[in-house]
Amino acid sequence: MAAPAPVSPLAPKSYPDAPAIRGVRFATAEAGIKYKNRTDVLFVLLDEGTEVAGVFTKSKCPSAPVDWCRANLAQGTARAIVVNSGNANAFTGMKGRKTVEVTGEIAARAAGCRAEQVFIASTGVIGEPLDPQKFEGVLAETAARVAPGPWLDAAKAIMTTDTYPKVATRTVDLGGVAVTINGIAKGAGMIAPDMATMLSFVFTDAPIAAPVLQAMLSAGVETSFNAITVDSDTSTSDTLMLFATGQAAADGAPRITDAADARLAGFRDALTSLLTELAQMVVKDGEGARKFVEITVTGAESDASAKRIALSIANSPLVKTAVAGEDANWGRIVAAVGKAGEPADRDRLAIWFGDVRVAVEGARDPDYSEAVTSDIMKREHIPVRVDIGLGDGRFTVWTCDLTKEYVAINGDYRS
Amino acid sequence: MAAPAPVSPLAPKSYPDAPAIRGVRFATAEAGIKYKNRTDVLFVLLDEGTEVAGVFTKSKCPSAPVDWCRANLAQGTARAIVVNSGNANAFTGMKGRKTVEVTGEIAARAAGCRAEQVFIASTGVIGEPLDPQKFEGVLAETAARVAPGPWLDAAKAIMTTDTYPKVATRTVDLGGVAVTINGIAKGAGMIAPDMATMLSFVFTDAPIAAPVLQAMLSAGVETSFNAITVDSDTSTSDTLMLFATGQAAADGAPRITDAADARLAGFRDALTSLLTELAQMVVKDGEGARKFVEITVTGAESDASAKRIALSIANSPLVKTAVAGEDANWGRIVAAVGKAGEPADRDRLAIWFGDVRVAVEGARDPDYSEAVTSDIMKREHIPVRVDIGLGDGRFTVWTCDLTKEYVAINGDYRS
Repeated sequence: MAAPAPVSPLAPKSYPDAPAIRGVRFATAEAGIKYKNRTDVLFVLLDEGTEVAGVFTKSKCPSAPVDWCRANLAQGTARAIVVNSGNANAFTGMKGRKTVEVTGEIAARAAGCRAEQVFIASTGVIGEPLDPQKFEGVLAETAARVAPGPWLDAAKAIMTTDTYPKVATRTVDLGGVAVTINGIAKGAGMIAPDMATMLSFVFTDAPIAAPVLQAMLSAGVETSFNAITVDSDTSTSDTLMLFATGQAAADGAPRITDAADARLAGFRDALTSLLTELAQMVVKDGEGARKFVEITVTGAESDASAKRIALSIANSPLVKTAVAGEDANWGRIVAAVGKAGEPADRDRLAIWFGDVRVAVEGARDPDYSEAVTSDIMKREHIPVRVDIGLGDGRFTVWTCDLTKEYVAINGDYRS
Repeated sequence: MAAPAPVSPLAPKSYPDAPAIRGVRFATAEAGIKYKNRTDVLFVLLDEGTEVAGVFTKSKCPSAPVDWCRANLAQGTARAIVVNSGNANAFTGMKGRKTVEVTGEIAARAAGCRAEQVFIASTGVIGEPLDPQKFEGVLAETAARVAPGPWLDAAKAIMTTDTYPKVATRTVDLGGVAVTINGIAKGAGMIAPDMATMLSFVFTDAPIAAPVLQAMLSAGVETSFNAITVDSDTSTSDTLMLFATGQAAADGAPRITDAADARLAGFRDALTSLLTELAQMVVKDGEGARKFVEITVTGAESDASAKRIALSIANSPLVKTAVAGEDANWGRIVAAVGKAGEPADRDRLAIWFGDVRVAVEGARDPDYSEAVTSDIMKREHIPVRVDIGLGDGRFTVWTCDLTKEYVAINGDYRS
């Protein structure tokens, strides 16, 4: 293992003091799965009545824990979550399936629930068997220590190549009662739309039924976790789950069973905002990242077309290396628009870095100034806008630069 | 401009002595378009009767020279080729169109032909105006010096970030007469299927009609230039052209006007083999490349499906950085198979590095040896095979590793 990478320069300067969420208690442990001298297991206990929703990788070769969670989601309730870092238990064949079964049994015993109410996520190396006996004893001991915080500890236990933990929180009105949403996430490489090696767990005390949670989560992920990319590589393990304990009902919060309920508006916005904040934190911790790049495509034929063009730009190694080199190489953006395969007319394109228009009507802007543009490229946060000039389609995605450190981190990972 | 990169360790150890092709003469010049103290213009004169075919970038934002060549291709004959390096004349708006028109006129005067018989290709920086007056005087002077060789000089004049020139030659029987095929190519970055910044010009003295040339070229490109990728970035300027002077007819070579003519079999194979050699040379000069990776996917539902899976693997930054780190990280190959979106069943996958099977039936091979596999990863040429286990579909693509040097080259390119 190479020396740990230094903390990303894009890391948050401070962390929110995420409040307790009634019905959610957790603790972390050092199970020694791969890492030494750090926590690598997060065990969360959820009170009876907790409902659950989830969104998973679209990979055709998902990990055993993803298969397990998908199957358990059907019954809609959750009592425990086991997350480990260091080993993804992915492409481990029959052994991998046995591992999640045994882990589910160990966790169910420790939590006092049924195995199908246990959700499992694993992140780390792919293709190495994960011995479920690592959890035997550990989960029972951890269950004895659970507490409603601190959330930062939960975020730390699930890190792999992350250089900082990721926590976000919101408080929002639901039918006249304040409810809380907390989320943690991990992910730094193999990040692409469709949720690359990214794990995120979001919790609320709002009393919201599982199908409503699922509808909000599926919608919210499109403009947050599915709008980020570090390296275009989709993982086999992506997992985003939302747990609602419902305990704000004790304060009078209404139980919501219809996704069209008007009282959900504030909650839905807060959830999407929290997911976006977590997703951006993941990009800002992109392996080797030193720049955060926001790419907005306007004027495309549709929002979907705008998204495909934006991702083509965001995934272009040539665009990303140019950003790393603080080079306002908008020609590479043109090339990335061209290769997206979406309707685009060279002679209608306009491109901005920050507020500076560098290209218009298929050519360099007459007022183009290398010096002014270079100043923008020196910033940590670089907004790029591309107007296609054909319609009203619009989408924003976020990515980071591609640096030598990315190559170093990923060339040495297993050794 | 950073110091020139050292010659790729994958460069050929020697160059073929490509013979003259009757009806093809050329010379190179230093026009000072961007580079100093090196040739940056190739001017080729073709005897009357030369027929032509071409394949171009699929980018929706092609360069002005690509538009020019596509338009001129319709009339089927060629008398001159102008290629410059240093400036791609891409995304240069109306100015760019004017540049190719003026260049075409200058070249037509120098070659004594019509402007529509002139083919133009430009490679280098995108978005910078290219002054056609750079060619005034230069082309007339160059035309006075044309000769049937040396081909290596032609290949050198069209290089950009290439670290070595690319020349290939074949001699093949056509209806009892020996005919020659010579090709040159350039390209090192922005190489992806659909022909990224890649220029290649192939010449033969065989008497073959333009529609037959086009059919053979369009078919041959699929398993050669469209089966390579350096960085998944498609350029706005990709150009592959095939010119047939027909002068082997003087020796009795038959004129071929039907793509189904059985006498073409040998020629077609030789052409595809030459295109594949040139394409592999491009990958071996991939920016920063130190490893040549051959990825063969078998057992897919169709050849097309196999190609998409193979390209998903070949374009994965995580696979490519692992190869750079000499890390037999087959888990990342599984992830790349999974994200391709093609039919695949985790539990049927098998993966080989060289002759060593590392994974079978959805898990690590029981006989897996890290030491044996690591030995393979130390080689310069790394064959990877992935069997999907579903059908008979098969395809091979070629790529290179992703190194810190790639990032350095592309982060500093314009500065």
